Amino acid sequence: MMTARRSNTANSLTPEKRNGALMWQQIANTLGTEIRDRNFSATGKLPGESELAERFGVKRHTLRQAVAALQVQGLVRVEPGRGTFVQNDLLNYPLSRRTRYGDNLRAQGLQPGKQLLTAMEIPAPEHVAEQLKIQSGAAVLMIQTLDEADDQPIGLATSYYPAARFNGLLERLGDGSQISDILRHFGVADFVRAKSCITTQMPSEETARLLKQSVLRPLLCVENLDVDMNGVPVKYGETLFCGDRVQLAVTSGENS
Amino acid sequence: MMTARRSNTANSLTPEKRNGALMWQQIANTLGTEIRDRNFSATGKLPGESELAERFGVKRHTLRQAVAALQVQGLVRVEPGRGTFVQNDLLNYPLSRRTRYGDNLRAQGLQPGKQLLTAMEIPAPEHVAEQLKIQSGAAVLMIQTLDEADDQPIGLATSYYPAARFNGLLERLGDGSQISDILRHFGVADFVRAKSCITTQMPSEETARLLKQSVLRPLLCVENLDVDMNGVPVKYGETLFCGDRVQLAVTSGENS
Repeated sequence: MMTARRSNTANSLTPEKRNGALMWQQIANTLGTEIRDRNFSATGKLPGESELAERFGVKRHTLRQAVAALQVQGLVRVEPGRGTFVQNDLLNYPLSRRTRYGDNLRAQGLQPGKQLLTAMEIPAPEHVAEQLKIQSGAAVLMIQTLDEADDQPIGLATSYYPAARFNGLLERLGDGSQISDILRHFGVADFVRAKSCITTQMPSEETARLLKQSVLRPLLCVENLDVDMNGVPVKYGETLFCGDRVQLAVTSGENS
Repeated sequence: MMTARRSNTANSLTPEKRNGALMWQQIANTLGTEIRDRNFSATGKLPGESELAERFGVKRHTLRQAVAALQVQGLVRVEPGRGTFVQNDLLNYPLSRRTRYGDNLRAQGLQPGKQLLTAMEIPAPEHVAEQLKIQSGAAVLMIQTLDEADDQPIGLATSYYPAARFNGLLERLGDGSQISDILRHFGVADFVRAKSCITTQMPSEETARLLKQSVLRPLLCVENLDVDMNGVPVKYGETLFCGDRVQLAVTSGENS
């Protein structure tokens, strides 16, 4: 732990330094390590600003800079008036052969929700056609939904279905039917996830607005391919998950 | 496509607008969609600055703002003097039951490298002890490496082994032995990955420096647990992958 020393001469907006290094960076590093070591796991909350400022022997604005850095790293979230919370209450999203959105959430005591944003027929973009094994430019049904857990957005999902096979799917979706029921109508009794590919990216302004998150916080992007029991592609999807609310879990069981 | 119109009156640093919306944002959205639709996949490169500025009918500084936005979203990377490249040459990192770092890379024609940064015995942090099923505070061997592909950093890996079982592991590591050979010496003939958990975070200044990446670009964080053939935890690890260089692949085969 660093020793306390308070400078009374420096201007309050000059970054404080100690041994030539920026104090807020040193504090952010120390607190970051303590958070990763679960030192605050009992309360899930960091001590108050004045308590921390006293511990490190710095001005409050320096402490605030350190906390802001932890926020950008996704280690804490600041709830105005309530305090600074360790960011560890992530929703668990299993990526398995039998991934089902609603079941996943209900198993964690969360209420799944889905807002339909777009449903239209378009010519298949090249990479979508490739995944669905159809001709580039052949018609696909594109469905975009905002996925929610307990009314909070967690992901923005775009799905593509080959139009030739699922002619009339969009109309049934408009009736409020579940997608698995609709697929069953088209003779797809069951389907499994053949593969998932995970990347990370920063959100566009539009995506950040829809997901109600900061443009400064990253997303987890999952591309996945679902196939029917004959191995024929049924759906290709791309989901942008809020990195602050979701973690992806891969379990390597025999039936995963 | 937008129609060309050039304003000669606006100051060159005033953001250009059209129909009330910021031009650079409109252009970034249009180009972003085209990139996702693989419109530039033939060359992997965006047209030159002046060509794009002419196409959208905007000044070059507006075009540069749009490209900067695409860069932050991770859709392109700008190589000074060479041009703007679509970011799609990601290294594929399979997360499977039998994930082996070196084999993965060699299979993609890449030369794996590993720089040993830290190797020391420490008391187990709470979450590490929990995963390894040992007492909190019991000694663990912590090994931190910088993982490389063709001499470029791709990930920062921290591994924890229970010290009681692997007494002497660090000394053998110092001799330059491979970790799988060392484990075999300790009676671990084989091991598999029991689970992986994937999150995203922004890098700290230190991590960004080690990984030679921007602090503005996100990381993929993979926590994983390896177990021996009796299901006993052997290693708990946390790897921070460069989001711009790595994608994680989950294949749901029977033997994955």
